[in-house]
Amino acid sequence: MRKIYHEQLDDILPELERMTRTVSTAVRRSTAALLTADLGTAEEVIAADSQLDATGEMVEEKIFELIARQAPVADELRMLVAALRMVADLERMGDLAAHVAKIARLRYPLPAIPVELESLIEDMGRVAQRLVDQAGNVINSRDVSAAQQIASDDDEMDRLRSNQFRLMMAPSWPHGVEVAVDIALLGRYYERIADHAVSMARSIIFLVTGEMPLAQ
Amino acid sequence: MRKIYHEQLDDILPELERMTRTVSTAVRRSTAALLTADLGTAEEVIAADSQLDATGEMVEEKIFELIARQAPVADELRMLVAALRMVADLERMGDLAAHVAKIARLRYPLPAIPVELESLIEDMGRVAQRLVDQAGNVINSRDVSAAQQIASDDDEMDRLRSNQFRLMMAPSWPHGVEVAVDIALLGRYYERIADHAVSMARSIIFLVTGEMPLAQ
Repeated sequence: MRKIYHEQLDDILPELERMTRTVSTAVRRSTAALLTADLGTAEEVIAADSQLDATGEMVEEKIFELIARQAPVADELRMLVAALRMVADLERMGDLAAHVAKIARLRYPLPAIPVELESLIEDMGRVAQRLVDQAGNVINSRDVSAAQQIASDDDEMDRLRSNQFRLMMAPSWPHGVEVAVDIALLGRYYERIADHAVSMARSIIFLVTGEMPLAQ
Repeated sequence: MRKIYHEQLDDILPELERMTRTVSTAVRRSTAALLTADLGTAEEVIAADSQLDATGEMVEEKIFELIARQAPVADELRMLVAALRMVADLERMGDLAAHVAKIARLRYPLPAIPVELESLIEDMGRVAQRLVDQAGNVINSRDVSAAQQIASDDDEMDRLRSNQFRLMMAPSWPHGVEVAVDIALLGRYYERIADHAVSMARSIIFLVTGEMPLAQ
């Protein structure tokens, strides 16, 4: 019984790491769908999100059962509590990638992003995806200093978001209201994906050290 | 020892209910700050959010300790897991109310909202606050059917958000890009507050029934 319990326990983090890879793919593909007005890819990202939610619910179930039935010892419980938080982060990140894809779908067959803004959106997608990848790596490595690094890499997203506002608020903005609203919401979605990657890194620090680092 | 344990356990939900009342006040005041270009109120809402985060972290600490040190039985554990989720929801709702207040602060001394849109924003603030209040009530009553009601009341927010997009996307939109971006983000913030109220209601259903209702 304890043996099966430990096997189940050992499965949780690799399962979260797989979910993180799935989210990374969703972020990459939703950005691609946006930049190339690719309806098929947008639809696939949106459909894949339901699959991710189903996986997340299954992992949550498993965690609840392990907590409730197996009287985990302190460090096991800490892992399970951290895992519960990370599942919630991953489900939200998947939703946000789907929101990005939905903007691509809404504007199709037109591209949602004017040519001059493509590189900004590309950068946001790239930074978000990199943070997700880093979160996946620290799930695997449990490397506290790498986890701490994620929070500071998040600053790059803040800079991109400020740039974005500056462009939109300039009197010379030529793209009208619809594009501005899309871009503002996209910026928010990418920023939130980055925030959730930081939150996952904090959960890993908690898992390893027992201390939850303060939110910034 | 068990006596103190049960007292601590019994304190958790009333503490969450108090936090919910604090969030309700923050939502109401941030909307007021926005509609009346009231910098003092905006600053107070922003400052109060740090206090809410501190309370949230304290409650989380308490929950972790109760889980880790007291070997809670199944229904106690379910309450503690539900409480952990609700604390996270409450912290996010507080952040979102502070985001609303920050838009009021950013545009001060000008009002952020054109006169014709005041009633739309007022409605969004009102619906968000009502959902928060309802979530506070079900923490207190553990009434599953009232909790289920919250999810359907959330539809009103969706309708308001659709109205908002229709107004902004009309060729006759006279307020330019800056206002549109503010309004789009405000709509997103209120919508997310409503989503978190629904999520709290789901946690209460889980706490009472042991079943986590599926996300919609």
